[in-house]
Amino acid sequence: MEGAVLLCLSSRRRGQESRGTTLPSVLVPGLIVQKYGGSSVATTDLIRNVARRLARVHASGTRVVGVVSAMGDATDDLLAVAKRVIADPPDRELALLLSTGEVVTAALMTMALRAEGRDATALTGFQAGIRTNLVHTKAQIVDIDPSRIHRELDAGAIPIIAGYQGWTDDQDIAVLGRGGSDTTAVAVAVAIGADRCEILKDVDGIFSADPRLVPTARKLDLISYEEILELALAGSQVLHPRAAELGETYGMPIVVRSSFHDAEGTTIVRGDAMPLEGRERVRAIAHDYDVARITIVAVPDRPGIAHAIFAPIEAAAISVDVIVQNVSHRNVTDISFTVSRTDLARTLRIVEPVARGMGASEVTSSATMAKVSIVGSGMVANPGYAARMFGALAEAGCNIVSITTSEIRITCLVDESQVPVAVRALHEAFRLDLA
Amino acid sequence: MEGAVLLCLSSRRRGQESRGTTLPSVLVPGLIVQKYGGSSVATTDLIRNVARRLARVHASGTRVVGVVSAMGDATDDLLAVAKRVIADPPDRELALLLSTGEVVTAALMTMALRAEGRDATALTGFQAGIRTNLVHTKAQIVDIDPSRIHRELDAGAIPIIAGYQGWTDDQDIAVLGRGGSDTTAVAVAVAIGADRCEILKDVDGIFSADPRLVPTARKLDLISYEEILELALAGSQVLHPRAAELGETYGMPIVVRSSFHDAEGTTIVRGDAMPLEGRERVRAIAHDYDVARITIVAVPDRPGIAHAIFAPIEAAAISVDVIVQNVSHRNVTDISFTVSRTDLARTLRIVEPVARGMGASEVTSSATMAKVSIVGSGMVANPGYAARMFGALAEAGCNIVSITTSEIRITCLVDESQVPVAVRALHEAFRLDLA
Repeated sequence: MEGAVLLCLSSRRRGQESRGTTLPSVLVPGLIVQKYGGSSVATTDLIRNVARRLARVHASGTRVVGVVSAMGDATDDLLAVAKRVIADPPDRELALLLSTGEVVTAALMTMALRAEGRDATALTGFQAGIRTNLVHTKAQIVDIDPSRIHRELDAGAIPIIAGYQGWTDDQDIAVLGRGGSDTTAVAVAVAIGADRCEILKDVDGIFSADPRLVPTARKLDLISYEEILELALAGSQVLHPRAAELGETYGMPIVVRSSFHDAEGTTIVRGDAMPLEGRERVRAIAHDYDVARITIVAVPDRPGIAHAIFAPIEAAAISVDVIVQNVSHRNVTDISFTVSRTDLARTLRIVEPVARGMGASEVTSSATMAKVSIVGSGMVANPGYAARMFGALAEAGCNIVSITTSEIRITCLVDESQVPVAVRALHEAFRLDLA
Repeated sequence: MEGAVLLCLSSRRRGQESRGTTLPSVLVPGLIVQKYGGSSVATTDLIRNVARRLARVHASGTRVVGVVSAMGDATDDLLAVAKRVIADPPDRELALLLSTGEVVTAALMTMALRAEGRDATALTGFQAGIRTNLVHTKAQIVDIDPSRIHRELDAGAIPIIAGYQGWTDDQDIAVLGRGGSDTTAVAVAVAIGADRCEILKDVDGIFSADPRLVPTARKLDLISYEEILELALAGSQVLHPRAAELGETYGMPIVVRSSFHDAEGTTIVRGDAMPLEGRERVRAIAHDYDVARITIVAVPDRPGIAHAIFAPIEAAAISVDVIVQNVSHRNVTDISFTVSRTDLARTLRIVEPVARGMGASEVTSSATMAKVSIVGSGMVANPGYAARMFGALAEAGCNIVSITTSEIRITCLVDESQVPVAVRALHEAFRLDLA
């Protein structure tokens, strides 16, 4: 594994990254990674469009590596087929199945580049040297051996890498979890010492809110890694959180832009590179429909219950998001938490026996929750954002189920039906339509 | 590559096989390979049926390895998508693309086995240790390292191998050509020392002719490797020719049977194990619609022209079948040959400049030819079969374009429209409806 760049991505939290690892000491000028998402490659016509775009970059003398997602809904379609065979597909085989989606795109994109007269080579995650940990789905990249990618680049070819996947030490295929192709792209950009990583999408950049919900939403020119990470964790699907995290750790410039035209897009920079004025604001509103809530009712409140509940969930590689434990009454308490809707059934199967064993009275769940969040670095230094948020939501008639915060984010759990009203109310309350 | 069984399949012709290679010295009792073709796994319901069948075998105490094809028309669908991107897809990327079809089936079959309560592990060609030569499509297996398959078997699991694919020394994925999953199955059976290899299909066994064309066609209980190989080369799609070849070389018993019920099927044995009476007959009629014919008109007849024409075609890994060179008139001749219809465009691109360079007057082609063949070991010792064949075809009004023969086969090239009439006429002329 000579020349491998150890990415040390085993922890999800920033700050725990091992920053002392080998970084390419010399940036090769004119080397970029471009990642094209599922809706940019959903049909063979779109694949040919992207190939023309990659070919144009290559013809201009810039060396370029492509990272591609599965075509359109291919991943969902494969998952649906698996669920017709077994309700809860085993991870190892599910990863193998889902990995084929990106391989298909990579092969077709390479063919389209040949049709454009460009030399190109499709690479699976394994062929691209992408090693992951032993979790088969939602795996994390542990390192990349970029030697094959460099070899293809040195031969003048455009390497087209199947995103979202890697290879474990057990010689099995692993996938990175939804949006994992973003992470592949940034990790590859770091490993090969690219000048920047471009994430090309069916949107023009990062907006102050989802333009489908808020017609006055503005495209942002700049955003900080920290803000994009919080937006991503809050459900904005514009960039995968691990990709943002990785970009921040290694200082890899990331540009989010449209795959359909050449407009500028949004550049993600360090917070201290943001214009001073911009720092003092709420930057954007995020929302997330992929929220299911589980409540364990009337648990005896004794030490160790949280550990007993969450350790087996974590062992199953299920991400738990908002956790709320009520103040105890008569020595019993309720514990609520949220998971991705796709993890609800699996989580319930883990939680129910644990809750029974603790003497909890029941486990309830809802698959129709959602999160609405405000994000902005300006919130660190300036109080009063929470009050304005809750006021705006109350005025709009939205019931807040629970609240969580980070330094630069406030998230409210609401019923999914209230999302459009809540997002519009917050966009207006924080004047995000003004540049 | 310790423990690898060197299969030495680099030559297509029997007799050139290296027979002195390592063979497993002890056959493990109760170990079989079952291969399920595309129409047996075309839907998730069919996959669950096959899984129940594999689970029943496993529950009976027999150790079993599954080899699976792509679901239904998945390979054709992938090929069609590729052709929407580029008329003539590059081999390396086409192999990568097509290989995903079998991987999908292997993953789903494994999930279905888990649903049946059986432990199972999906293996790609690479994971199964299947190494091929450097041809990306129509590759040949050069050896198999069965260590992972054995490890899964020893752990009590059912290994489910994605057929039709392997891995080159360049770390690229290769596919074996159409019907290649049969070859995978027999090669794996040889490599792990299985007791037999079962090929499970949507037909009940090998018939005296295609029952869709001849209602009185009979299922054969026994057939020799030599006969099945000739039938396969003559276009019968019941077993891939290289699978038959490999079975003969290593004496691996092959059974062709239905995947839908438990009837006996057809067992393929050595010729000297056939009942004496059966040896003296035409065994079956085969036909093949996948025939395109190219004619180079008025080539100057000088030494080396055949080499000049066919060397570049062979270099492109295109199989040339029936070659006919007319008797020369005034020192010019016509050369005709057939290729698979899918290879026609590519072959023409190779042949046309060569023909021009030779001063040939033109190159013509037809994509609507077909072959009709009679096959039977009895033909070696008994003359008169050819005359009866040509007589029956003449009586049925079929025009014979050209004729080729082997020791136990006579093949006539006809227009595709004449196939049904020709097959019925030959089945009747050789009394194949009688047991």
